[in-house]
Amino acid sequence: MATTHFADRLLLGIREKKAAACVGLDPLLDQLPMGVLGAHELAPNSADPADDHPSSVTSARRVEALFDFSAEVIRIVAPYVPAVKINIAFFEPYHAEGIRAYDRLIQMVQAAGLVVIGDVKRGDIGHTCMQYARAHLGERAVRAGEGAFPPDAVTVNPYFGQDGVKPFIQVANETGRGLFVLVQTSNPSAKEVQGLRLADGSTVGDQVARLVQTWAVDSGLMGTSGYSNIGAVVSPRDLASTRRLRDLMPNCLFLVPGFGAQGRTSEEAATCFKSDGTGAIVTASRSVIYAYQEPPSRDLYPGDWKSCVTHACRAFVDQIRTIVPRSGS
Amino acid sequence: MATTHFADRLLLGIREKKAAACVGLDPLLDQLPMGVLGAHELAPNSADPADDHPSSVTSARRVEALFDFSAEVIRIVAPYVPAVKINIAFFEPYHAEGIRAYDRLIQMVQAAGLVVIGDVKRGDIGHTCMQYARAHLGERAVRAGEGAFPPDAVTVNPYFGQDGVKPFIQVANETGRGLFVLVQTSNPSAKEVQGLRLADGSTVGDQVARLVQTWAVDSGLMGTSGYSNIGAVVSPRDLASTRRLRDLMPNCLFLVPGFGAQGRTSEEAATCFKSDGTGAIVTASRSVIYAYQEPPSRDLYPGDWKSCVTHACRAFVDQIRTIVPRSGS
Repeated sequence: MATTHFADRLLLGIREKKAAACVGLDPLLDQLPMGVLGAHELAPNSADPADDHPSSVTSARRVEALFDFSAEVIRIVAPYVPAVKINIAFFEPYHAEGIRAYDRLIQMVQAAGLVVIGDVKRGDIGHTCMQYARAHLGERAVRAGEGAFPPDAVTVNPYFGQDGVKPFIQVANETGRGLFVLVQTSNPSAKEVQGLRLADGSTVGDQVARLVQTWAVDSGLMGTSGYSNIGAVVSPRDLASTRRLRDLMPNCLFLVPGFGAQGRTSEEAATCFKSDGTGAIVTASRSVIYAYQEPPSRDLYPGDWKSCVTHACRAFVDQIRTIVPRSGS
Repeated sequence: MATTHFADRLLLGIREKKAAACVGLDPLLDQLPMGVLGAHELAPNSADPADDHPSSVTSARRVEALFDFSAEVIRIVAPYVPAVKINIAFFEPYHAEGIRAYDRLIQMVQAAGLVVIGDVKRGDIGHTCMQYARAHLGERAVRAGEGAFPPDAVTVNPYFGQDGVKPFIQVANETGRGLFVLVQTSNPSAKEVQGLRLADGSTVGDQVARLVQTWAVDSGLMGTSGYSNIGAVVSPRDLASTRRLRDLMPNCLFLVPGFGAQGRTSEEAATCFKSDGTGAIVTASRSVIYAYQEPPSRDLYPGDWKSCVTHACRAFVDQIRTIVPRSGS
């Protein structure tokens, strides 16, 4: 699996499923369905890892509840989407046990035949960054850990410039994997740094986009699809800036967060695609995995969280099909 | 310990030891002394976590070797410096076992009565960022994990703007802890993003510095010392920019990396301090922990890596004393 080219592999999955859609796993214990909590003898008020009466027994139970919920979501969405993104932040509060659960889930997604993206947002410099790259993308380093395989791609923070990205590129090159560099994020304060106006009239985000395109072309990781193994995280903040980013990075796949719960519109997401329907994969997280909490899924399948996830995932994929130019075919 | 104010606590330690100096733990197996590797039945060529014949036995041995070396360094430097910084990147290649070793080392530094900084460089948005903040600074979340206590402060990446920093501030506020926001890093390509020139003539780094100063003042984390629990990572790239950053962040302690192996000069480091001798703590990592590899320590104490660390640590502290204005007294 890891011997082929990451971007080509992801694009093949998108074509096969006819879905430029990725489900994001951001599992929080206090959001889990009662049935999952109950199966692990966790009352709702003991689900928060920061509650007042922790013990090692409940900690292990909490991680198992997180894992079981996530594993079930993977099984449910596997027929519909080509990729799953797992955010490691939701596992780090559980320390060693949490990391073990994260690693096991990475393997579960791969066993289901899907592409898995490790949303780790790491970045550091020089030989330190190489440690992160080996930890999160390196096959051998991971085998030395616990027999786990790394994800197909990870997310990387660009604040250090190329010194914080090149080690990831090197390891990705060795293993046929990929990375998505954060360019434009979906949060309200993103403009405080990414949106700063430069002397030449462009923004910091534009300049990071130019860097990412340069790395994508220079890295030797270009696929037969014309896309590099180096992509970009781009949340469509507004139509004009998104069109500009699409133009600045013609060889980069966009990982597009912020759909669903974070409220991006269809038109904004559509701008991340090229006119041939390629170039992006859109992620929805909370709107799918917690679908049991909200209408319409909640009303259609009351008390049945799994059917709610199925329904929300299919609705998400259908919606993406309507917004992708020419439906990617 | 965590009930007092982080910046006040760090400044007290600096005064007591007369040393605005911090030892950084960046332990790499293939750099460890032969004696440490031998004690764990590791040949030098099996020390690299990415070697070709990993097994769970050698993986566990590797982590133990890293831990034992790091623990011994902590014991050696504890009489001389008020703080130790541990970079989690060097433990993540060992996954769950590595995180457990990192957590145990955090506790060892605290048990030695020193301030410990977790160099994690995390950043994300909204409720995801809160998970990182709880994982790395939150007392209760950590108790729920494995009985570990979090470090006294962590490093944070500013690329998301305040959304990526405020959750850390909130948790730091709850627990009397602190954070250092990356402003200017020590790597050659830092200028690709941090050094970009803005329309008003300042740089991205300057603007991040203004944000950090605002957060420091607005957060309610100001100590009796006049310094906030929110500090900045500032590598002195050149004298002019460092002076400007010192002026822009009067209420922020600087964590100054890049001394020793990374080659910053004494004059550059001195610029991070105010004229009263406060305002910064300088970190040396490889030049202290691997002192056995280089003259003069290697020649003075051949075959005795512990004496080399002692010698290099004392020399580092002496050097910092000569460069701090008025010696901080």
